[in-house]
Amino acid sequence: MATTTTLRAGEGVRKLAEGDYGKGYTELLSKLTTVGDVSEEDFRAQLHFLETERGGDYCILVVEDEGKSRIMGTGTLLVEHKFIHACGSVGHIEDIVVLPEARGQGLGHRVVAALIKEAGERGCYKVILDCAEKNVGFYEKVGMERKEVQMVKYL
Amino acid sequence: MATTTTLRAGEGVRKLAEGDYGKGYTELLSKLTTVGDVSEEDFRAQLHFLETERGGDYCILVVEDEGKSRIMGTGTLLVEHKFIHACGSVGHIEDIVVLPEARGQGLGHRVVAALIKEAGERGCYKVILDCAEKNVGFYEKVGMERKEVQMVKYL
Repeated sequence: MATTTTLRAGEGVRKLAEGDYGKGYTELLSKLTTVGDVSEEDFRAQLHFLETERGGDYCILVVEDEGKSRIMGTGTLLVEHKFIHACGSVGHIEDIVVLPEARGQGLGHRVVAALIKEAGERGCYKVILDCAEKNVGFYEKVGMERKEVQMVKYL
Repeated sequence: MATTTTLRAGEGVRKLAEGDYGKGYTELLSKLTTVGDVSEEDFRAQLHFLETERGGDYCILVVEDEGKSRIMGTGTLLVEHKFIHACGSVGHIEDIVVLPEARGQGLGHRVVAALIKEAGERGCYKVILDCAEKNVGFYEKVGMERKEVQMVKYL
């Protein structure tokens, strides 16, 4: 019961901030995939780099709990600049994850909807993402549709 | 017959350059998708922006003909910086296209292989791309494998 109370989500979404390392940001990412060795210093350096060296192309959003002590969900938007579509931009949605014990409250939907809105505000003509077959239904609920096949090569 | 001669590919691949507007770069992209209104000035401004404002994250390669008068194939690598995988990077391969009248000479393979090499040199732990079902076989030949589902939302 205590766990449920702790993990009730606060309102809205906000941008990832320096103090979020201490609120379990990388621990949250580890529920998605391998995070590896990322110290607080590494985290701050990477966040600073993305915020100051890439001209606003990265928008990383988080949802925290009511007590503002823990990051419960996150997702990233990367804006890609192209020549096609009149030198248009495409939004890539990446690294969507919600704490397993906080799922079912609509946090993933909230994060993705906010990232799509950010992409629109940045003038993107479309947003894309790659997901596992089992998550297609989730993304259809936020208005996305199945399009192509993702190919990968590990280096 | 004259067409075939004109469109024999030169050696290697090289980075997209300012003069390539005049060599049909945007015309080539129009074989892939909508290009819209991109003047020579727009092209130069966007190329300059990508080269000087995004710290080497964009690598746009081209193959030209023997006479160095026409761009016959192109592809783009965008390096994405992440927190996962020890603040690792992922290479996104985008906008691969070869002039229809120059297909079958292995130019697409040459461009994609060069982009994968660039991704490796930039330390990417993987490269990904999205393609139509009919092109899966082509990308398998350059060592890629089918992985996830691409979802899209047009804005």
